[in-house]
Amino acid sequence: MLQKLSPNSPILQATFGLERESLRINADNRVAQTSHPENLGSRNFHPYIQTDYSEPQLELITPVAHSTKEARRFLGAITDVAVRSMDKSEYLWPLSMPPVISEDEIQIAQLESDYEYQYRVGLADRYGKLLQSMSGIHYNFELGKDLTQQLFAVSGYDDLTSFKNTLYLKLAQNFLRYRWLLTYLYGASSLAEEGFLADEIGCVRSIRNSNYGYVNAPDVHISFSSLEQYVTDIEQAVASGQLSAEKEFYSAVRLRGAKTSREFLTKGITYLEFRNFDLNPFEPLAISQETLDTTHLFALALLCLDDMDQVDEELAQAADLNNRIALSHPHTPLPAEADASPILTAMKAIVQHFGLDDYYSQLITQVETALQDPRLTLSGKIAEQVEDGSLERFGQQQGRLFHDYAWTAPYALKGYENMELSTQMILFDAIQMGLHVDILDEEDQFLKLWHGDHVEYIKNGNMTSKDNYVIPLAMANKVVTKKILDQAGFPVPAGAEFANKTDALRYYGQVASSAIVVKPKSTNFGLGISIFQEPASLADYEKALDIAFSEDSHVLVEEFVAGTEYRFFVLDGKCEAVLLRVAANVVGDGSSTIRELVDKKNQDPLRGRDHRSPLEIINLGDIELLMLEQQGYTPDTVLPEGVQAFLRGNSNISTGGDSIDMTDQMDESYKQLAADMATAMGAWACGVDLIIPDRTKPASKEDPNCTCIELNFNPAMYLHTYTYAGPGQSITPKILRKLFPEL
Amino acid sequence: MLQKLSPNSPILQATFGLERESLRINADNRVAQTSHPENLGSRNFHPYIQTDYSEPQLELITPVAHSTKEARRFLGAITDVAVRSMDKSEYLWPLSMPPVISEDEIQIAQLESDYEYQYRVGLADRYGKLLQSMSGIHYNFELGKDLTQQLFAVSGYDDLTSFKNTLYLKLAQNFLRYRWLLTYLYGASSLAEEGFLADEIGCVRSIRNSNYGYVNAPDVHISFSSLEQYVTDIEQAVASGQLSAEKEFYSAVRLRGAKTSREFLTKGITYLEFRNFDLNPFEPLAISQETLDTTHLFALALLCLDDMDQVDEELAQAADLNNRIALSHPHTPLPAEADASPILTAMKAIVQHFGLDDYYSQLITQVETALQDPRLTLSGKIAEQVEDGSLERFGQQQGRLFHDYAWTAPYALKGYENMELSTQMILFDAIQMGLHVDILDEEDQFLKLWHGDHVEYIKNGNMTSKDNYVIPLAMANKVVTKKILDQAGFPVPAGAEFANKTDALRYYGQVASSAIVVKPKSTNFGLGISIFQEPASLADYEKALDIAFSEDSHVLVEEFVAGTEYRFFVLDGKCEAVLLRVAANVVGDGSSTIRELVDKKNQDPLRGRDHRSPLEIINLGDIELLMLEQQGYTPDTVLPEGVQAFLRGNSNISTGGDSIDMTDQMDESYKQLAADMATAMGAWACGVDLIIPDRTKPASKEDPNCTCIELNFNPAMYLHTYTYAGPGQSITPKILRKLFPEL
Repeated sequence: MLQKLSPNSPILQATFGLERESLRINADNRVAQTSHPENLGSRNFHPYIQTDYSEPQLELITPVAHSTKEARRFLGAITDVAVRSMDKSEYLWPLSMPPVISEDEIQIAQLESDYEYQYRVGLADRYGKLLQSMSGIHYNFELGKDLTQQLFAVSGYDDLTSFKNTLYLKLAQNFLRYRWLLTYLYGASSLAEEGFLADEIGCVRSIRNSNYGYVNAPDVHISFSSLEQYVTDIEQAVASGQLSAEKEFYSAVRLRGAKTSREFLTKGITYLEFRNFDLNPFEPLAISQETLDTTHLFALALLCLDDMDQVDEELAQAADLNNRIALSHPHTPLPAEADASPILTAMKAIVQHFGLDDYYSQLITQVETALQDPRLTLSGKIAEQVEDGSLERFGQQQGRLFHDYAWTAPYALKGYENMELSTQMILFDAIQMGLHVDILDEEDQFLKLWHGDHVEYIKNGNMTSKDNYVIPLAMANKVVTKKILDQAGFPVPAGAEFANKTDALRYYGQVASSAIVVKPKSTNFGLGISIFQEPASLADYEKALDIAFSEDSHVLVEEFVAGTEYRFFVLDGKCEAVLLRVAANVVGDGSSTIRELVDKKNQDPLRGRDHRSPLEIINLGDIELLMLEQQGYTPDTVLPEGVQAFLRGNSNISTGGDSIDMTDQMDESYKQLAADMATAMGAWACGVDLIIPDRTKPASKEDPNCTCIELNFNPAMYLHTYTYAGPGQSITPKILRKLFPEL
Repeated sequence: MLQKLSPNSPILQATFGLERESLRINADNRVAQTSHPENLGSRNFHPYIQTDYSEPQLELITPVAHSTKEARRFLGAITDVAVRSMDKSEYLWPLSMPPVISEDEIQIAQLESDYEYQYRVGLADRYGKLLQSMSGIHYNFELGKDLTQQLFAVSGYDDLTSFKNTLYLKLAQNFLRYRWLLTYLYGASSLAEEGFLADEIGCVRSIRNSNYGYVNAPDVHISFSSLEQYVTDIEQAVASGQLSAEKEFYSAVRLRGAKTSREFLTKGITYLEFRNFDLNPFEPLAISQETLDTTHLFALALLCLDDMDQVDEELAQAADLNNRIALSHPHTPLPAEADASPILTAMKAIVQHFGLDDYYSQLITQVETALQDPRLTLSGKIAEQVEDGSLERFGQQQGRLFHDYAWTAPYALKGYENMELSTQMILFDAIQMGLHVDILDEEDQFLKLWHGDHVEYIKNGNMTSKDNYVIPLAMANKVVTKKILDQAGFPVPAGAEFANKTDALRYYGQVASSAIVVKPKSTNFGLGISIFQEPASLADYEKALDIAFSEDSHVLVEEFVAGTEYRFFVLDGKCEAVLLRVAANVVGDGSSTIRELVDKKNQDPLRGRDHRSPLEIINLGDIELLMLEQQGYTPDTVLPEGVQAFLRGNSNISTGGDSIDMTDQMDESYKQLAADMATAMGAWACGVDLIIPDRTKPASKEDPNCTCIELNFNPAMYLHTYTYAGPGQSITPKILRKLFPEL
């Protein structure tokens, strides 16, 4: 069928969804007996992080993605959130087969729904609790809309629903027919720890995909020969009590898109769920990119195969073949009747007909190589890790490895490191709380978050519906901000704006005896700023004006305010954090050179480059060397103990400065004043920069003891959370809780 | 005192306020008998436009300004609003002395306050209604804060209030002492029309500033010898019934800043009001910039004069001198005892000591020249306009001249033409409605508007508190906008975004048979856009991708939608206007060349350059010549009648396109759809650009018959108001009425 399509057809267009189960494991390497992490919100609605059968068995569910990459990326994010929401001593078991476990360690998930609880109690009765502790990955697959349309167009069908039912049923049939190939390649539930199985089966390819796995009673027969037969069989099995519900039918492939099987007949099958994947213990996300893409190509190839004559018989044989392969030792060759050539031929034909990338040819080559050498399969590799008839040591090692990886750079969200840190943190929090998230524009840091019908958009972490449009525009304009604060009676630097040098020169009389700053109106920390900490001569003042006017048509002359600058983060009328920024520096220990001290300071895992970390690496470039020279130092100077040397004159974090959380130390009066300023401005999220000469003296509106030099309408939030010193203040969850008070 | 200041002192720092009275005159050149214009809102609170004594006597009041230029500019704006709020047949009388008038033409202002009405009735009894029809300008003057502080510092005074009382009393005393000089220079109430005065006094300098003017009864004696005496005298005059209220004391200078005179003793005088200025009939605003600045310098000079020994006596003599000068023929020389040299010397000393501009020296020279030649004074010039003992013809001529000036470019606000047109229109409307306005940043189009305690900020005409912050940010991003509209079920062009060429090339299959647009993600009407109205070949598609990727890292490939583009202006869920933009064009008349047709079309007063007018001049540059050539024309082609030739391929107004108001013609269904789109987006003010193939077919959400190609978060409003064709829709007043529903 695919060959009838034009080579330009969007053959790879499809949507994907992944569900991964995994057991939480405690410090003793046993299944955790703790409850589902509280900070993961309510399992009544959490879209991404649920529990499967038992309380410690997490189920991580991606939303529908338009590529395997996107699905896997989101799985990475959910995994990251899940791991970092658990007690730090717990980790996720990387294998499908649990560690040594007893029935009484398996507590049924404490779901609020009584039906769900009772359903699980029933499963325990029917299959035993131990079986329920196996984990796997489900791979949901739907052909793209345009691709489906194009297939429909060449199909000869009149009715799209009938066509889709035929298409997906064929895919399901052939999936079951060639399922053994996936079992061979990706089977990874190789060993049952002591006490798990009554039988002694040793190391095999996939217990989960064998008859020892999750299979229905032998008397349950559901035919895939036609959709009508399938529906009839399932309904009968439920009616007769063979199955407690339709969802208890455990097939390696499940038809999806309707609430009951019968609905497929009228509404059509929408997508398929492949349920056979074992956890890959070599991958932090338990499934590799290559496995996803090979399976995608495999699924497309299934559509190219001829129809079976005797579906039920052939699928029974295929099931038997699959069971034998699943229960063979991983290093044994395939049985002779396992012939992959039809499917390989079809995969190659697709690559050729549609001109797919080399990548896809390489995927096929990998399959062929693995078919030649069973040691290259997943179970082949796992078999080498068995020690004393156990995979526990290997499972612990891999589980802890992935656990440590998730906890490195905890300020970032895995897979989304190119986004702003504050946006990564908001995404993390939103997933944790159980909000639906959609990145509308990744470059633009534009998010859509929702719960039920309640939608909120967020840009750059704190640009939300809570601020009204014109206020951030006012804050973006220094002159307007000053006027508004001044009119409201708050302390701002005295000063004036000039559109020409003549007027600015005439102003000299008012500033001849003051410390002043001359700066272009619109340049922020940029060129053209002159600071006179001592009164300027007229000539110097004029020079400063010339410099400033060369940068902008409007120039500000302002009072220079001495003191220490603090950033107050105000949210919804309350000061949530206070930050002190200190220029890049090192403090001597009496034995290390400055170069060594810098190297040591740069070891801090919070330090990185290009705003991808909360703090920046301190450089030793020309500016830093000059700065050292001015203090009489070189990089080779050994600094006396306790002596501080500065590497930079400015306190920006972006040039290696230190961030110090002062929230607890700052006098409440200043926090209140900053909050009042933001309120007077009408701002919801606002960074208030105050210069405070002496913070031991409290502030009041009458006698503020400080000056506001700037309001920031998009203040960085991560700065307050991951600080060089001090406890750090978490702000992004507060933003979300205010946006979604119903959670 | 001033000489003690440093030459760098801000000598010119001061604040100014102007109040100008003027009579409304009807088409018959008589005082208008109509009511105060309704569209000027309520006189209960209008801060800028009030009525003085009589219903037709407008009083235009500027807010406090920090320079004479700013005060005069705002007076220009208020004047512009006042004139264009009156019936178009009415104009403002440019002279202080009314045209021929009878008592019964003077209707007392219909103010709601009964006190104010009865006060005016009393004045009519006491002085006659005719006298009340004279108009003048009041000039409020306060020394700057820093200047006052510096003067205080060198004064030897301990108490600022006492110092300011001394300072302003001295200024007031010397103002009365040298008032004659202003009467000589600026007197302009030269002629009483027949029936106005009982006496025959002929042409003089200033009736208003003579004893025929607005003076108290001869028995009212208020001494300026000391503040205490002044307060005692005024209180006595009121107690004895000589004055009905303190404000009935008509002095050429009035002390200001307290509710009662007695308060000056404790609170201090804050500023002075100079009440002697006649309307200058040569100036549209009735006072020139030079008069304002000369008076400023004059006032500063008054502070430098020695104190008088016998204040009451000397001021009595000065009043007598002033009266004689006021009642002399304008071309007569000054009496010998009128010695201006002390004041001129002081003015020159100030210019020299503080190094003031040449401009101020030139102002002094102008005074000296006028002292030599009375014909150069204002009244000297007015005297030459007297015809048959009347100034009516002159008054009518000047009044109509200024009236016509106000009505040219009615889309602009005089004095604020550098601001965006929509902002000028908002300012006009705000002043008209009686809102307080403050331009927080002129360059940035940032306004503060308020009524009572209710403050609103507006940027660029429609960026307000009514929109929430994140929605305009969403609209600024084409991809985000499309996703939101699409998710809400509205028609947007199909398409996809690509971050690399490989993915974009793979997409070819989906667009191989469609009309498409390939464009860089962030460039708006800029470089790198390729339009394929016919399906593109793969090679051409690839070329288009290369071009687009050379402009941006992200490229959009979108369905090309054919049809006519309309702009729907949606405000608060309602479509208020629909605009069609047509590329620059001319239509032949069978005899004119294209060049002539373009010239003729450019005569439209709505056409100008650089966005300073609602429409732009059509050029005949290279692009236009090429466009003509493609149609087989040259600029010298004579176009047949009714044949349209296009000068541009794009329909932008900025390149000479026509704007056509289609609000009434557009089917309601499209207006509703556009409004629904803005609502779905969450936007308050929003421009919705729809491509409509056939607007005779109605739209519905199920079958929209159109496609939305863009939402604009700051849609130009003036475009809809002043259109090339169609009635035009006024939007800015709607914005204000929604922001201030209480008005």
